[in-house]
Amino acid sequence: MSNLKIQITRNENKKEKVPADQLIFGRTFTDHMFIADYTEGIGWHDHRIIPYQPVTLDPSATIFHYGQTVFEGMKAYLSDDGIVRLFRPEENMKRMNNSCDRMSMAKIDEEHALEALKQLIEVDKEWIPSEPGTSLYIRPFMIATESHLGVSASLTYSFIIIMSPVGSYYKEGIHPVKILVESEYVRAVAGGTGTAKTAGNYASCLKAQEVADLGGYAQVLWLDGIERKYIEEVGSMNVFFKIGGEVVTPALNGSILDGITRKSIIQLLKHWDVPVTERKVSMEEIREAYRTGKLDEAFGTGTAAVISPIGELRWKGELFYVNNGETGELSKKLYDTLTGIQKGTVQDPFGWVVEL
Amino acid sequence: MSNLKIQITRNENKKEKVPADQLIFGRTFTDHMFIADYTEGIGWHDHRIIPYQPVTLDPSATIFHYGQTVFEGMKAYLSDDGIVRLFRPEENMKRMNNSCDRMSMAKIDEEHALEALKQLIEVDKEWIPSEPGTSLYIRPFMIATESHLGVSASLTYSFIIIMSPVGSYYKEGIHPVKILVESEYVRAVAGGTGTAKTAGNYASCLKAQEVADLGGYAQVLWLDGIERKYIEEVGSMNVFFKIGGEVVTPALNGSILDGITRKSIIQLLKHWDVPVTERKVSMEEIREAYRTGKLDEAFGTGTAAVISPIGELRWKGELFYVNNGETGELSKKLYDTLTGIQKGTVQDPFGWVVEL
Ligand SMILES: Cc1ncc(COP(=O)(O)O)c(C=O)c1O
Ligand SMILES: Cc1ncc(COP(=O)(O)O)c(C=O)c1O
Repeated sequence: MSNLKIQITRNENKKEKVPADQLIFGRTFTDHMFIADYTEGIGWHDHRIIPYQPVTLDPSATIFHYGQTVFEGMKAYLSDDGIVRLFRPEENMKRMNNSCDRMSMAKIDEEHALEALKQLIEVDKEWIPSEPGTSLYIRPFMIATESHLGVSASLTYSFIIIMSPVGSYYKEGIHPVKILVESEYVRAVAGGTGTAKTAGNYASCLKAQEVADLGGYAQVLWLDGIERKYIEEVGSMNVFFKIGGEVVTPALNGSILDGITRKSIIQLLKHWDVPVTERKVSMEEIREAYRTGKLDEAFGTGTAAVISPIGELRWKGELFYVNNGETGELSKKLYDTLTGIQKGTVQDPFGWVVEL
Repeated sequence: MSNLKIQITRNENKKEKVPADQLIFGRTFTDHMFIADYTEGIGWHDHRIIPYQPVTLDPSATIFHYGQTVFEGMKAYLSDDGIVRLFRPEENMKRMNNSCDRMSMAKIDEEHALEALKQLIEVDKEWIPSEPGTSLYIRPFMIATESHLGVSASLTYSFIIIMSPVGSYYKEGIHPVKILVESEYVRAVAGGTGTAKTAGNYASCLKAQEVADLGGYAQVLWLDGIERKYIEEVGSMNVFFKIGGEVVTPALNGSILDGITRKSIIQLLKHWDVPVTERKVSMEEIREAYRTGKLDEAFGTGTAAVISPIGELRWKGELFYVNNGETGELSKKLYDTLTGIQKGTVQDPFGWVVEL
């Protein structure tokens, strides 16, 4: 047991809940938030759960100018059995610390962070929707707060957790999307910050997403920044392809995010004895697979959508269709299994789920 | 003339001024700040000069999670003649808009921004130090303020200007520094955000700077992220080399910041009939120049230091000394001319200076 002391101040002005079918991702927040402050030489202090409220910072705060910030994205699920479940939450805390390391930020105590999260969920548990497909989206993040203009690591930080009830990602059931392969913009290269969940990586992607939106594409598929040949990620998701019986996904190469859904899928596939390989995957290979009728399935993976099947890929002038624009068998099986484990309706052979 | 209306609220609790010799860069701020807000569909509104004060944002604000933010750095100089001078301020506003474009942010009205800056300086003019080498550092910046977790461009922004009196960069006169050539981390690649002045670019550099600090190096010299051969920038400065009579600087290649000091130096050198070339410069070329005794001078250029001479470069195991660790003749001449133009003691043949 952790010996963390968290001061709790209850919100006396609770907000009205939004009906599950009207929830828009990331627009509604619960009544409380967790916050702790870090001061160089002292460490983390003032761990507290307080009413959800604005953050006040000096205009010279490091976060505004030099961008030291990291975040995580995870979910709590409530099922008919009344149990609240988290999916591999310790992996998120571990990744958060890896991101902190890359961004030269203070590290969290992973156990304390999990304990804080559990207490926050307990305080706001009436906010967890239970309708099929819904969940409580959890956003732990850290920002550099020192009042100082100077390119050096901040001496103070705040670690905050906010939570947002979210509706079903697939209102009309899981369905494939159209993807634009990006040839101009680059998300990350090895040596950069692509392996960290840090704000700058996301702002830099908006420009390409704008172009994709205009063409009616749901997401951008990122290629490597060096040869502009190898597949990296799709939007804010990792990506898998099923090519003639083999499942492949780009290897962690120093510019790709180490997705928790990705690693869970690799584990599941191995458990099912489905051949799965982490290696370089080029667009030429995808074209060749398409031409020879071997491009069986393609899908993005991430906490938000779990599995997002790809129905069509546009690469420069060419179009590659996947599985006649329908959700593949393996994609569906992975989706059902993962969401089932998360909801407690499918047995969890790996000890992934933490019940609260 | 611009028809901008700025509401001014004067600070009734003025801070005590810090003596010029005790000023630390970016630690002291003037009594006022400028702020304007942007709302999609309405545009910029509520332009106001108010007492220097904290910024209050929802914890879900886009800046904290997806990093849409840009900034500029410029200076106002006060001379013995009592005139306040800005150096090419319209270039900063133009670059700010280029950065906004890359980060999918709202654009400023460049003329309005300049007008706002002039009024802010007028309100806080008693804060401009006049001792040799001092100046008023000006930090215009924009942050995305929408309360929404979702990877899409914010629909609201704040544009803020804060100002900080700064002491002399060279307390003991201009002198060369030791530079570590970075081989592991990468600042930017073409297709990324290297040409934008955005926060994420700076947080990503801290890790390499930590290593440089440990070894007693002042700054890191960045190589390209593709071949790891070609020189990009040094710390947060552009870089020049004088090799056997020719001055060279890396060409703007899509990953380097288009520095205003850099472009002014190129103009000055041309004006002086000194051969100057913008092209690829490899570390091999620097090594060869060193070995053949042709590495005459090397220096970084930027608003903060103007010219920062390089006395020593470490590249993997090798050490290259420049000009016996002394400030070169051309470096000194450029420094004296530029700072002279900025202070109004050297004639400005290019119309660079804006007198207030
Ligand atoms: C850039 C990026 N790639 C991949 C992922 C998928 O990671 P995870 O499966 O841990 O949610 C995410 C986040 O969710 C992401 O932001
Ligand atoms: C990354 C980077 N490169 C170069 C420069 C130099 O630009 P300028 O001469 O406009 O100050 C700066 C900022 O000052 C910078 O942040």
